[in-house]
Amino acid sequence: MNTYSYEKNQEQFMRALKVIPTGIYGHLGPVEGCFIPTSAYPFFSQRANGAYFWDVDGNRFIDYMCAYGPNILGYNDEDVDAAAAEQAKAGNCTTAPSSIVIDLAELMVDTVAMADWTFFAKNGGDVTSFALMVAKAATGRKKTILVKGNYHGVAPWTQKLGYPGIAAEDVSNNFYVDWNNYDQVENIVKEHPGEIACFMSTPYYHPVFADNELPAPGYWQKIRKLCTDNGIVLAIDDVRCGFRLDMAGSDHYFGFKADLMCFCKAIANGWNVSALCGTDALRDAVSSIMYTGSYWLSAVPFAAGIACIKKLKELNAPQMLIKNGRKLTEGLVDTAKNHGYKLTVTGVPSMWYMRLTEDDSLMLHQEWVAECVKRGAFFTNHHNLFMCCAITDEDISHTLDIADEAFKVLRKRPPTTINSVI
Amino acid sequence: MNTYSYEKNQEQFMRALKVIPTGIYGHLGPVEGCFIPTSAYPFFSQRANGAYFWDVDGNRFIDYMCAYGPNILGYNDEDVDAAAAEQAKAGNCTTAPSSIVIDLAELMVDTVAMADWTFFAKNGGDVTSFALMVAKAATGRKKTILVKGNYHGVAPWTQKLGYPGIAAEDVSNNFYVDWNNYDQVENIVKEHPGEIACFMSTPYYHPVFADNELPAPGYWQKIRKLCTDNGIVLAIDDVRCGFRLDMAGSDHYFGFKADLMCFCKAIANGWNVSALCGTDALRDAVSSIMYTGSYWLSAVPFAAGIACIKKLKELNAPQMLIKNGRKLTEGLVDTAKNHGYKLTVTGVPSMWYMRLTEDDSLMLHQEWVAECVKRGAFFTNHHNLFMCCAITDEDISHTLDIADEAFKVLRKRPPTTINSVI
Repeated sequence: MNTYSYEKNQEQFMRALKVIPTGIYGHLGPVEGCFIPTSAYPFFSQRANGAYFWDVDGNRFIDYMCAYGPNILGYNDEDVDAAAAEQAKAGNCTTAPSSIVIDLAELMVDTVAMADWTFFAKNGGDVTSFALMVAKAATGRKKTILVKGNYHGVAPWTQKLGYPGIAAEDVSNNFYVDWNNYDQVENIVKEHPGEIACFMSTPYYHPVFADNELPAPGYWQKIRKLCTDNGIVLAIDDVRCGFRLDMAGSDHYFGFKADLMCFCKAIANGWNVSALCGTDALRDAVSSIMYTGSYWLSAVPFAAGIACIKKLKELNAPQMLIKNGRKLTEGLVDTAKNHGYKLTVTGVPSMWYMRLTEDDSLMLHQEWVAECVKRGAFFTNHHNLFMCCAITDEDISHTLDIADEAFKVLRKRPPTTINSVI
Repeated sequence: MNTYSYEKNQEQFMRALKVIPTGIYGHLGPVEGCFIPTSAYPFFSQRANGAYFWDVDGNRFIDYMCAYGPNILGYNDEDVDAAAAEQAKAGNCTTAPSSIVIDLAELMVDTVAMADWTFFAKNGGDVTSFALMVAKAATGRKKTILVKGNYHGVAPWTQKLGYPGIAAEDVSNNFYVDWNNYDQVENIVKEHPGEIACFMSTPYYHPVFADNELPAPGYWQKIRKLCTDNGIVLAIDDVRCGFRLDMAGSDHYFGFKADLMCFCKAIANGWNVSALCGTDALRDAVSSIMYTGSYWLSAVPFAAGIACIKKLKELNAPQMLIKNGRKLTEGLVDTAKNHGYKLTVTGVPSMWYMRLTEDDSLMLHQEWVAECVKRGAFFTNHHNLFMCCAITDEDISHTLDIADEAFKVLRKRPPTTINSVI
């Protein structure tokens, strides 16, 4: 099995560095994207289709990052893209919005169990930030309880004091608790009566650099009751999990009902839209807030979203993704075992997290992943991975062959130091 | 000249109200969109082309709002949309971004005089918020000076204390000055030595509900010197003006050089992208900040942006828009005069502001605008209007006929009360 080389990727990256700070920024870039060692990774794609993307050197990858989530049906899904193309001919970003926005809002309300209404924006962060504003408007309070390690976007309130560009005031209304620790939440609520506007969390714990954790039995039901009893808005950030656990919403999957649900990645298979869904009790609060953006009512992503959600429902996508994720991860665990390694897999299998255990330096895991990437199975380190509906049994089988080969390489040599183009 | 009726618009709006708070939210909606009286306005479009959109009742409008700015070449521009469609076939939102992001970054750096680098996001508000974070990271300070009445998006720091969902901490690092008042800026800088990270403003004053105002002679040059002398980052919000005044940037148009420039609306003719441009001195600060979003490196809007900017340069779009805007507004002023009214026009003609004077209640202006809209010339009230390159002399002539007819109606009747579907 030949390993890939990345000459054109490196050339393009050097070109990018001149006009783009860090070359590629954010979660798609080598710095924040957990592309370690960077020498093992492609930086720029040329094209994509189904479960694959091809980089600028022509290397093909089975893509288990799915653009960090948006690719749920498979790249360039023909039904979604045909709907987008058809809408583009009629109109996209227009002074009076297309009535297709109503069609998608009705479909969201019909699909998401807790939703009485939907509000569309562009980024996950648009709707997590808006959820806090809605909670503040509805309650007249300003404090929020967040779970340490959860990611809710990049707005200053989501970041940490001491991070570049963040002022103390940006995070001064946040309380932080540990995941699955109900008592901490309850104590904060007791110690600050009438002050907590919102409890916001992902439906389960999927941070970076840590095993993912499902909610403990009864956790969400107790949180729900605590919020209801104390007039606190319960907001779920379903940006990453949304439609990968349950088409009716991840609160539904875990047996409770949120007041607000934030969706983004899987709505429109990569076409640019996010959504806040909510209950009737919060309709007036939403309506009271000035919140908008230049492209927020553009019609093309709405057309794509309608086609995507309908297809996800037809396929029963969450079940398919969980089943195939389980097949893949069980195979990876077995493959590791055959070579004397232990691979720990956590989270829901449609968006699992994995790490080689007995590897405190993390370098063994990183080297194994690097050997997989260089052979065409695209994983990143220390971040959950994603399944899409286009991944076939053959792709899974090929991935297991790659994993096997990568373990062989690992056994043949001692760990090396991290190399990097940065 | 028949007036339009809006039965299907009203029906769709009633349908929307069930699943979308306020039916249509934000600046495209009847509540915040200055669609007064709402009975005169269409709510939903069916299709758009060139300078026109058609509503769900089939009424055609010459569109002088241009989707609040993004429509600069004309709706569904064939060059832009062909580039977008071609890129969509290759790939859009992928795990490794397309190298087309570099092409657009190079084009931005080549086009915008002050730009050494470009950072892309999705909303204008993404890049105005990021500009503040960059300024804070670069200076280690946290205070910002803003101009009262300027619009920089919807993030909490852009809003006012007392608005729903806004906490005191959200705006506690803001100082506010009057437009064109250099002394106020200087005083704040003197009173808070070493505390001001950023002065942010639009390049000229284009608030709602007020005549627009150009910078006084020497204003920007004095502000530039004050910022340089005191280590303050000068950030220009060119979201609305960008590429409607000068392809090299609105700071260039007014003869100064900003440190950061925020672009959005006119970059890609409605395809979803925004950009922060900056100087080399701020490259490290940008690189230090975690700032990203799910779709920020999607390729389709980049392809559209390249096609759009190239075409804008070929057309010398800002000059064309200013010339045609002048032709239209001079015609409107004359038409008003013929009927004994005075129409005051302010701002740069490519995005002018207008109001009927001697009308303290604003209702005369609103009634005249309503009569124009009902005959197919789409204006809004109390907000600047926009020219696009697809507007022809014939469109302008037809608009003047509509304006004339609307003034005739105004003269025949006393002002009525505002009616509304809300």
